[in-house]
Amino acid sequence: MAALLRSLSRTSGLRGCASSFYHRNPYSPFSAAAEAVARDAAVGRGLAGLGPTAKGEKPRVVVLGTGWAGSRLMKDLDTTGYDVVCVSPRNHMVFTPLLASTCVGTLEFRSVAEPLARIQPAVSNSPGSYFLLARCTGVDPDAHTIECETVTEGEKDTLKPWKFKVAYDKLVFGCGAEASTFGIHGVTEHATFLREVYHAQEIRRKLLLNLMLSDVPGISEEEKRRLLHCVVVGGGPTGVEFSGELSDFIIRDVKQRYSHVKDYVHVTLIEANEILSSFDVRLRQYAINQLVKSGVRLVRGIVKDVLPDKLILDNGEEVPYGLLVWSTGVGASSFVKSLPFPKSPGGRIGVDEWLRVPSAPDVFAIGDCSGFLESTGKEVLPALAQVAERQGKYLASLLNHVMKVGGGHANSVVEMDLGPKFVYKHMGSMATVGRYKALVDLRQSKDSRGVSIAGFASWFIWRSAYLTRVVSWRNRFYVAINWLTTLLFGRDISRI
Amino acid sequence: MAALLRSLSRTSGLRGCASSFYHRNPYSPFSAAAEAVARDAAVGRGLAGLGPTAKGEKPRVVVLGTGWAGSRLMKDLDTTGYDVVCVSPRNHMVFTPLLASTCVGTLEFRSVAEPLARIQPAVSNSPGSYFLLARCTGVDPDAHTIECETVTEGEKDTLKPWKFKVAYDKLVFGCGAEASTFGIHGVTEHATFLREVYHAQEIRRKLLLNLMLSDVPGISEEEKRRLLHCVVVGGGPTGVEFSGELSDFIIRDVKQRYSHVKDYVHVTLIEANEILSSFDVRLRQYAINQLVKSGVRLVRGIVKDVLPDKLILDNGEEVPYGLLVWSTGVGASSFVKSLPFPKSPGGRIGVDEWLRVPSAPDVFAIGDCSGFLESTGKEVLPALAQVAERQGKYLASLLNHVMKVGGGHANSVVEMDLGPKFVYKHMGSMATVGRYKALVDLRQSKDSRGVSIAGFASWFIWRSAYLTRVVSWRNRFYVAINWLTTLLFGRDISRI
Repeated sequence: MAALLRSLSRTSGLRGCASSFYHRNPYSPFSAAAEAVARDAAVGRGLAGLGPTAKGEKPRVVVLGTGWAGSRLMKDLDTTGYDVVCVSPRNHMVFTPLLASTCVGTLEFRSVAEPLARIQPAVSNSPGSYFLLARCTGVDPDAHTIECETVTEGEKDTLKPWKFKVAYDKLVFGCGAEASTFGIHGVTEHATFLREVYHAQEIRRKLLLNLMLSDVPGISEEEKRRLLHCVVVGGGPTGVEFSGELSDFIIRDVKQRYSHVKDYVHVTLIEANEILSSFDVRLRQYAINQLVKSGVRLVRGIVKDVLPDKLILDNGEEVPYGLLVWSTGVGASSFVKSLPFPKSPGGRIGVDEWLRVPSAPDVFAIGDCSGFLESTGKEVLPALAQVAERQGKYLASLLNHVMKVGGGHANSVVEMDLGPKFVYKHMGSMATVGRYKALVDLRQSKDSRGVSIAGFASWFIWRSAYLTRVVSWRNRFYVAINWLTTLLFGRDISRI
Repeated sequence: MAALLRSLSRTSGLRGCASSFYHRNPYSPFSAAAEAVARDAAVGRGLAGLGPTAKGEKPRVVVLGTGWAGSRLMKDLDTTGYDVVCVSPRNHMVFTPLLASTCVGTLEFRSVAEPLARIQPAVSNSPGSYFLLARCTGVDPDAHTIECETVTEGEKDTLKPWKFKVAYDKLVFGCGAEASTFGIHGVTEHATFLREVYHAQEIRRKLLLNLMLSDVPGISEEEKRRLLHCVVVGGGPTGVEFSGELSDFIIRDVKQRYSHVKDYVHVTLIEANEILSSFDVRLRQYAINQLVKSGVRLVRGIVKDVLPDKLILDNGEEVPYGLLVWSTGVGASSFVKSLPFPKSPGGRIGVDEWLRVPSAPDVFAIGDCSGFLESTGKEVLPALAQVAERQGKYLASLLNHVMKVGGGHANSVVEMDLGPKFVYKHMGSMATVGRYKALVDLRQSKDSRGVSIAGFASWFIWRSAYLTRVVSWRNRFYVAINWLTTLLFGRDISRI
């Protein structure tokens, strides 16, 4: 490139007044082939990567995942004493309880995504801390290393994924669970889950596409009806909240913005058992009333097969749909199943009461990927944001304590008191059911007594609680602004 | 479906308290095959579509495109006297002058997209007005009809595109131009343009991906340097603004958020001639100073070939890149070239001084797709937002006038005075060059005298001017909030 610019100056003489400002480019010539050789050489001597830390260096905590558990852990980790290396296929945490609202434009996508660099700035500005856009593919507990592969899927003209190794002093699994499909054919291909921001984007694009296509001449009545039939499978909080948002969108915005097709839009919620089964019976009844009042059809059935334009229930009946959202809960991921550790009931990574993986020193697991081993005598906790967040917080304080008493480095077994065990106290469950309505179940377990409230008051509590839980002030500010704008101007309907 | 639900109630007995709220679904059974038959039947009797309007009905204005010209026209069209049918592959207008800012997170994507339904609510709530997500594929001026095809690209499990016809009383071409590639191999495949919101999204995703990948162990120094080399081809306002935003992003945000790789990030702007050639010479000099000061390398050269990871200049030198943005202006689109109308110099749809297509009654053309016929003795106007916007405004008032004197319907030739011809008066050009710096050239033409200002004052004018031009209050509000948030908290860097 330097040669290039020299020759450019010679041949073109850099005519015009601007010439003196055209700079030399310090790039040295190199070719893709040379790079490949360089990389192969690196691979030849074993995978490139981050080697073990030395005694004088800060110990390294490697965290897999940027969900509720991992993000909370990294936020609280004392980076004056630890280096943090996060390995995750996404560089942000998703504020999942508000994700359903983004599908219909009540909130913007960016308002529910918190970049890890804001949660834990060390990963972007501390010399030994990193965020690595990659997936963990294997663990060697004896060598205290993990193997990873970069994630570049979905981009054109990018690098091929490559593998590398990272040595850890402490390793924390916070890599979450997978959406359950129960092996039903066609779910992965034709339905959309609601767990990541790109899922919400997909749902939004599809919904707006269907609304627009159904207004174009040449479409049959039946096809129009099918396109505008939104089916949600799974009557847990996510399915109920999404159904509520959707029918509110139809009542408030579709009637006004798509008035030609408003009578064709319908929402059906399919659930095999009872909706919101973990909630108090009065709250369930209230939710059902609200959903039905806002036009959601509740259907009890089991899905047997999913085709591109209809699903088939176990009694053989066909349900045509234009948009299918699948939210039937989560189960252990194939990565978790492949790990060489004893499992909890349900196939999660088994942990003791300090969230350690007992068979592997310096390894911990938190959030949806982990569960108490049967030997602890404790039940596996539900896959809830509040469990994950509490575990992240607990483990950060445990690890900070370990570091302070000199046990931060790998295999540095120190005689010490680990402090109190992790105890989960359920703070109550919340779910919205459409505009200005929510359920708040403050009972500590399904069978205990406690307060359960529904309606505007709980909607207000819900909004306030979430606003203060959104991690950064920036996003709190944005969510408040989004809610205000939606209130003032209605939802945004541009399909970008 | 009614049968389905009846049988469901029979077989499962709808156990539990919720049963009485499970509703019947009014869907009648139908199959995809039945639909196909219905549609084929429609096609058999000629394409489905919107037929000609009757004498007593409102005349129909069909507008092709949702750019500056078409959107402004539709905004001002008197919908008490006209029905509006808009045919466009996107349902929103893009506020193009602010698009460069969205690539680096200064503004959110949604802040620069204005849904057509907000610009002209009639398309969503008036019985005879529509927005049709489609592309025009042909015109029959004698029959006063156009043929269109729906646009569903990029979505999985959606309908196959279908064709339909729309009869018009007045037809307005506002379908814009295409990015120029000068037939250079590889541009379309490997470079990204900067004309649509999805282009800005692509640039942002690629930029953040490259920043993250370059931090992963196993990457070579050269590869890292290549990945983080952003090359912009074309030194017009778009190229200069994007380069300025990018280098500001590097100075303010990358240094802080990606401090491990900050010394590898570089921006190069390649231009065959002079940058900002339409601007006053002092402003050009100022822009060059500012760009160089903020670290942009200016290279004079002509691109000969574009490969996935490098481009080749006409003297054979290679320039490796990780991100390539192409903004070398626009030219007539292949659709415009295919139209059976006389063309202006440059191949645009030729119009007279009232923006009519003289050979086709009731047909008009505005914005980048149109140009004065040589016979008018006027020069083709530049492809600028302000030209398009002024033409849209002018034509709306002309069409409103025509309708009021009874000439709204097709072929209803009325003896009338069309009013003044369209005269373009250049209001000045503006371009930003990084943070708090802009150029404002208030000269009316390249050779005339006039005011030209640069620096903070013009940046302030620029921001204010754009804020009041963003169409809706909602987006003005959002842009202001975005700017405020960026000022307070820095740019958003989550890659969603």
